[in-house]
Amino acid sequence: MPRKSTKKKAAKKTPKRVYLFHQGNKEMRDLLGGKGANLAEMSNLGLPVPSGFTITTEACIDYLSKKRMPAGLMEGVRAAMKKVEKETGKGFGDPSNPLLVSVRSGAKMSMPGMMDTILNLGLNDRTLQGIIALTGNERFAYDAYRRFIMMFSSVALHIERANFEKMLNAMKKKRRVKQDTDLSADDLKELVKQYKAFFKRRMKRDFPTDPMEQLETSIRAVFGSWNIPRAVAYRNFYKIPHDLGTAVNVQTMVFGNMGDDSGTGVAFTRDVATGEKKTYGEFLMNAQGEDVVAGVRTPIEIAQMKRDNPRIYREFVRLATRIEKHYKDAMDIEFTIERGKLYILQCRVGKRTARAAVRIAVEMVKERLITKDEAVMRVEPDQINQLLLPGFDPKEKDLAAKEGRLLAKGLNASPGAASGAAVFNADRAEEHGHAGAAVVLVRPETTPDDVHGMLASKGILTARGGSTSHAAVVARGLGLPCVAGCEAIRVDEAAHRLTVDGKVLKEMEPISIDGTTGEVFAGLIPTIVPNLAKEKELTTLLSWADDIRRLEVWANADYPRDAKRARSFGAQGIGLCRTEHMFMETERLPIVQRMILAHSSEERRAALKKLLPLQRKDFAGLFRAMDGLPVVIRLIDPPLHEFLPSYEELLVDIARLEIKSPTSRKLKGLRKMLEEVEGMRELNPMLGTRGCRLSIMMPEIVEMQTRAIMEAACQCAKAGVDVHVKIMVPLIGHVNEFTYVRDRLQPVAKQVIKEKGVKVDYKIGTMIEIPRAALTADEVAEQAEFFSFGTNDLTQTCFGYSRDDVEGKFLLKYVEEKILPENPFQTIDPEGVGKLVEIAVKLGRKARKNLEVGICGEHGGDPRSVEFCHKVGLDYVSCSPFRVPIARLAAAQAVVKDKVAISDSR
Amino acid sequence: MPRKSTKKKAAKKTPKRVYLFHQGNKEMRDLLGGKGANLAEMSNLGLPVPSGFTITTEACIDYLSKKRMPAGLMEGVRAAMKKVEKETGKGFGDPSNPLLVSVRSGAKMSMPGMMDTILNLGLNDRTLQGIIALTGNERFAYDAYRRFIMMFSSVALHIERANFEKMLNAMKKKRRVKQDTDLSADDLKELVKQYKAFFKRRMKRDFPTDPMEQLETSIRAVFGSWNIPRAVAYRNFYKIPHDLGTAVNVQTMVFGNMGDDSGTGVAFTRDVATGEKKTYGEFLMNAQGEDVVAGVRTPIEIAQMKRDNPRIYREFVRLATRIEKHYKDAMDIEFTIERGKLYILQCRVGKRTARAAVRIAVEMVKERLITKDEAVMRVEPDQINQLLLPGFDPKEKDLAAKEGRLLAKGLNASPGAASGAAVFNADRAEEHGHAGAAVVLVRPETTPDDVHGMLASKGILTARGGSTSHAAVVARGLGLPCVAGCEAIRVDEAAHRLTVDGKVLKEMEPISIDGTTGEVFAGLIPTIVPNLAKEKELTTLLSWADDIRRLEVWANADYPRDAKRARSFGAQGIGLCRTEHMFMETERLPIVQRMILAHSSEERRAALKKLLPLQRKDFAGLFRAMDGLPVVIRLIDPPLHEFLPSYEELLVDIARLEIKSPTSRKLKGLRKMLEEVEGMRELNPMLGTRGCRLSIMMPEIVEMQTRAIMEAACQCAKAGVDVHVKIMVPLIGHVNEFTYVRDRLQPVAKQVIKEKGVKVDYKIGTMIEIPRAALTADEVAEQAEFFSFGTNDLTQTCFGYSRDDVEGKFLLKYVEEKILPENPFQTIDPEGVGKLVEIAVKLGRKARKNLEVGICGEHGGDPRSVEFCHKVGLDYVSCSPFRVPIARLAAAQAVVKDKVAISDSR
Repeated sequence: MPRKSTKKKAAKKTPKRVYLFHQGNKEMRDLLGGKGANLAEMSNLGLPVPSGFTITTEACIDYLSKKRMPAGLMEGVRAAMKKVEKETGKGFGDPSNPLLVSVRSGAKMSMPGMMDTILNLGLNDRTLQGIIALTGNERFAYDAYRRFIMMFSSVALHIERANFEKMLNAMKKKRRVKQDTDLSADDLKELVKQYKAFFKRRMKRDFPTDPMEQLETSIRAVFGSWNIPRAVAYRNFYKIPHDLGTAVNVQTMVFGNMGDDSGTGVAFTRDVATGEKKTYGEFLMNAQGEDVVAGVRTPIEIAQMKRDNPRIYREFVRLATRIEKHYKDAMDIEFTIERGKLYILQCRVGKRTARAAVRIAVEMVKERLITKDEAVMRVEPDQINQLLLPGFDPKEKDLAAKEGRLLAKGLNASPGAASGAAVFNADRAEEHGHAGAAVVLVRPETTPDDVHGMLASKGILTARGGSTSHAAVVARGLGLPCVAGCEAIRVDEAAHRLTVDGKVLKEMEPISIDGTTGEVFAGLIPTIVPNLAKEKELTTLLSWADDIRRLEVWANADYPRDAKRARSFGAQGIGLCRTEHMFMETERLPIVQRMILAHSSEERRAALKKLLPLQRKDFAGLFRAMDGLPVVIRLIDPPLHEFLPSYEELLVDIARLEIKSPTSRKLKGLRKMLEEVEGMRELNPMLGTRGCRLSIMMPEIVEMQTRAIMEAACQCAKAGVDVHVKIMVPLIGHVNEFTYVRDRLQPVAKQVIKEKGVKVDYKIGTMIEIPRAALTADEVAEQAEFFSFGTNDLTQTCFGYSRDDVEGKFLLKYVEEKILPENPFQTIDPEGVGKLVEIAVKLGRKARKNLEVGICGEHGGDPRSVEFCHKVGLDYVSCSPFRVPIARLAAAQAVVKDKVAISDSR
Repeated sequence: MPRKSTKKKAAKKTPKRVYLFHQGNKEMRDLLGGKGANLAEMSNLGLPVPSGFTITTEACIDYLSKKRMPAGLMEGVRAAMKKVEKETGKGFGDPSNPLLVSVRSGAKMSMPGMMDTILNLGLNDRTLQGIIALTGNERFAYDAYRRFIMMFSSVALHIERANFEKMLNAMKKKRRVKQDTDLSADDLKELVKQYKAFFKRRMKRDFPTDPMEQLETSIRAVFGSWNIPRAVAYRNFYKIPHDLGTAVNVQTMVFGNMGDDSGTGVAFTRDVATGEKKTYGEFLMNAQGEDVVAGVRTPIEIAQMKRDNPRIYREFVRLATRIEKHYKDAMDIEFTIERGKLYILQCRVGKRTARAAVRIAVEMVKERLITKDEAVMRVEPDQINQLLLPGFDPKEKDLAAKEGRLLAKGLNASPGAASGAAVFNADRAEEHGHAGAAVVLVRPETTPDDVHGMLASKGILTARGGSTSHAAVVARGLGLPCVAGCEAIRVDEAAHRLTVDGKVLKEMEPISIDGTTGEVFAGLIPTIVPNLAKEKELTTLLSWADDIRRLEVWANADYPRDAKRARSFGAQGIGLCRTEHMFMETERLPIVQRMILAHSSEERRAALKKLLPLQRKDFAGLFRAMDGLPVVIRLIDPPLHEFLPSYEELLVDIARLEIKSPTSRKLKGLRKMLEEVEGMRELNPMLGTRGCRLSIMMPEIVEMQTRAIMEAACQCAKAGVDVHVKIMVPLIGHVNEFTYVRDRLQPVAKQVIKEKGVKVDYKIGTMIEIPRAALTADEVAEQAEFFSFGTNDLTQTCFGYSRDDVEGKFLLKYVEEKILPENPFQTIDPEGVGKLVEIAVKLGRKARKNLEVGICGEHGGDPRSVEFCHKVGLDYVSCSPFRVPIARLAAAQAVVKDKVAISDSR
């Protein structure tokens, strides 16, 4: 027995670390990364994929943890290389027929542009001669060589790329040419010489000539790139685990830059911006892949290929269609044409705009490629936010155009509109953005080093690059509006300004971009909200989601206009109307203050009497907007000092007046106010006299609110509106608090109904937002007719965090350092807060069968939190009106995931 | 079957509502009240108890809920009265041999003086003549009649007693006499006339003459008295449920005021102040019971009776001894001598001082009357606080005496010493006391109307009344020092002052009273702490408690001197040392501020380096004091702005300087400080950057603390001290917070041990004071080596209460209105906070068997919370040093209660 286990262990110690492409398949993403798995899949489909092999993610993890190459890895690489040599008939390092390879990273999750790539590996002075001999193209060969030296040096050995670009630019200047392609073979030969000399000076050694050494160094570099700061930041943003590692793909080079019968490009099987079913993409003739992605030269639309090279075009469309049918999804395909022969270098599920995602999902159902369940899973709920994001008000935009503020037009790289202060570098964008300013990041082109600035911006504008450029891809992923390749503008980074057509825009001057049209304007343009009804595909998809989901989706709305919008977005009720917002309105505040500062119940009632008709009107508007649907109205919640002048301002004003006019009446008045404010001041207002505590101390307020609610309800009911009122008592911790308040409201409600002589459906329930209420939910449910989880407060008390105080402080570090997996105010914490929710649902339903339970915290609009709410059996989620469609989709996805989990477990 | 159940229900509808004394027994307290049950018990023992009957508490509850007399009740009363007439041979309302009765309340729990009593009921003009004929004592008869009219009018019909007292006083003035007893029969006859005339004027009817009407009205009055405000307030204070109701005892009158061969008194089988075994008490000849209790005349010690009336004295001692043996407890016995015959009117377990309670319990064990378990149950844990309360420093007291500040000497009515501002009425005492002033309430005598003022005072001084007077009884119950019957002082209520021997003391002038000696001083006298070791009986009782209890008792102590005291009080470890108190000391604060305001880690470390030796010294002192016992040291907890100047003060200072000296350097400095303070300011500091959050943001601080702790530990260990260090991480919510901090401290601890070359036992554990930590305690326990519940914070977060903000505000109302059964900061809330504790203990022990779990919130010293901690299986409670003995006793009681519960359930 022990011997056997030793054997097993030994076997475990040497796992297969290198897979030839045809040894894998698309299900092996964990081990081979997304790119490797897809290369394997395509190889097995018989597609023209240049042969190669993949080094596993496990090897990467092993390397990173032990900080040395895993034992036996390079042996495996050599063996695989032998097989590739056999397949291609070429030799790695063989000057007579040299095999050149690319080395690319490939993680499980796509991280575009975040990891490093090395092309043309295997070149040295000897194999170079082989390439020249074989291709008869000296210029091409030297160009490949100088590119390789630059990439290898910068990626594998961390010599700044700028050093090489400087030499390249100097050469172009010397030759008075603009494009790299204008340089001659001799120029490039000279550059290679300069590069190698520079390398030697810098590294105190010659540029490595042994291809296998080049390869090993490159593999180490790809492994190491997993932990470079920009990769870590990207994973943090997208919540990708840090322990996955990356695979390394080593693939035979094919060259798009072997002349005018060669080229390279990226294409999509459907339009990634609109979702339209058409082959769509860009390519460059006589270029290598990096030229397309980096946006250095502006590429040509693929439609052009149909005219210029119909054979290749037809071949490509045939292959692309095959790939899409196989994957049953819109695909992003990288291809290269080498001397007229088409190769597929990579394919992956195409990133797309929200609009495209929705259209593709809906159309693929109609094409019977996928089911409705699958369609619903194809759109990230958060993504459809994009379709509902405000766009420019057309009138305002027309006006801006008439005023001559249209500066230029670029590519509509990512839809949506953004207005803000122009900022010309990523650090400044981050700085101003984090400080709360709306900024638009303007760059010549973007690179992965700019991502942190993009994250903090409202929109992106680049002077160069196409719709598959770095800026465009990242912006679409982030749901940020982006105008790319706007070549009319010149960005002067050093001077922090842009010039266009003689006009100058300096840093922090306002700019507006429309990512849907590609237009760029000077000045700010107001935005308007899109009309969901006109989004046909989205409404179709959401209607399928509605058929699938079990959770209802309600909205948080304080005003009739919000309620109307929520309803138009599909809300099935109002889950939270915050009545205190109504108190804050300018004309009402003085009455509210008089009410608070009243020294007798009579004085207080007199002030409240003035508020009554105003609140009644608010409520009536809500009931009319939600005719037939439930409306949950929360009684006054915030501490009263929020309605009074600031204590600190009073202190300062008084200190000044005491010197300047010590006997003034104003000073006397301020002192009196200070005394009042001081009496109500709290060290920790979040944990002070608010919610039902306030209702218990000043029952007059909630009695007025109840009267206003019920009078509005009766008035609407009389007018034929179908009213369903739910009065919600906030912040209870003990059931007695609920009954105390309820017993004071119930008679008022009954009295109003009696006075008005109308029957109105009303219920009195409570928020569960204090741990104690959750823990004693059985007692509470015996009295309360419904529950609504206030997960904002519940998160605050369960964690002991004041959201205002911690989000900008230690919570940042907590999430960064993975002390907490998430910001619990964004996504519900399932283990702590979620446990309280589960306990409360269970206890509550034990005491009151069919207890209606919802959630009205901000989590109600967060897809992962919606999934949680589905799992624990809530009846509905309530979120902000704009997030209603998101929640509808997320609720459906929760059901589909459940189905998949059940069928998986069978 | 259904018929049977109907029958049962019908039977339930007419319960027995009236019990003759011999129909009950002492176990029937729920139904008959304490007084009724004891009267029944004594009747059955054959003691000379005047016959009578008891109306049940159920009848009272019924009356109060339905607001009318229960059906059939008065029939039952009439039937019982018939039997009493038969037993006594007298007739209720029969002029020839009239039966007079007393009507008294009697709840399950003793509520001395809180409920109302009516004596001599059955008197009218006709029966009065019968009494005169039978007794031949006209004066006695008229005195009884005028007392009855006054009591019946005031108690049953709510006519202010003062009206009658005014007439009485006018009569005494007219006759130029001081004592009631000096009034003649004719005077009293005249008074009766005046009383009846007043009654008629006031009530528009004649005084009721029908004895049965008198009785019914009185029964209603006793029932109603259950809900008078002072009774409700008393129950709130003593946490007696409000739904028990009171029984009514109707008992044949015997008269202590039938002449000089009659008398009445109250006696105890042991000394209620010292616990000494001797018959002890007071009586008055020719008086009714109310004269003794009210303290109107100062009574005579019972020892006097031994000389004056040895036969009666011997008889009384015989009966008292019999009662004590029967009840196995020190008893409080009311007796009356009517014309040389001794009657027992009432007996109950005697209220006693802490000292007496302890001595009685210990001696009764030695007398083999009770077991050690029973002895432990005989002392209220909170009560022994009295024995540990500071008394006057003898030197300071001598000095005060030498300076002529000894004003007078009264009865040592309740032990302990108090210094404070003299206040002369209850309302003012409450006002100043609640405002935080130490006040001594000085009254001519006290009545139930003064209780609210007594509750707010540090001590009580009365000019009249004995050691069984209202003031004395209530003060002992409250554990307040009291000097009673200090007849040398004259209290001028109207002028708010007292005069004594020509000296005047005005309101708010300092006064000191010694309830142990009866001395009263002018001015304040410093107090000192008693020595537990000298309290032989208490140490005996506590040693028994130690044998019985399972819970360990530790103490919260920040300084070596506290630790030493705690140990002398029996603490078995330090459960909480708050290290930040060490930071607050004046000479250290500037260094602490420099450390906080440091802008680099180096600057911070430099300041911390200066704090290190200071903290090391503190810790070494603690370890030495606790040689052989565990010491839990909590890492820094409070938010850092607590160590900086106040934001508000800075604002005001700056506002002033901006006008007065706008270019000063001081202003510049203040502005800089304001900026720093502003940066750290929090809206809700309780939920902000404190506890482990701080440790994570500034690990340098806790690294220094760990070094200081471990260096001190090593240094002590080298010197032969047996050190057991427990480092405690506060405020964790997620296990990762614990591991993050632990992983930064562990290397420091190991490093120090390595440097010093000594082996030291140390553990790193955590506080559980955040709901999330309790809910995920299994994950936490996998990492943390011990748990300590911080129930102060846990109560704050579980309820969502900021203690500072709510205790003085809505929480008062919550407890008053029974929205919450208790102040959860005083007694642990078992349903909410307690549930979290239970969950955490269960989960924690599941993950780590033998996990050590304690509590270090203030609840650790609250007896009911200690019982809870025992029940949920904690290992120890930690409380303030003074409360250690209380917790030791409470922990033992928890075990005994468990045993009783188990044997009850068998």
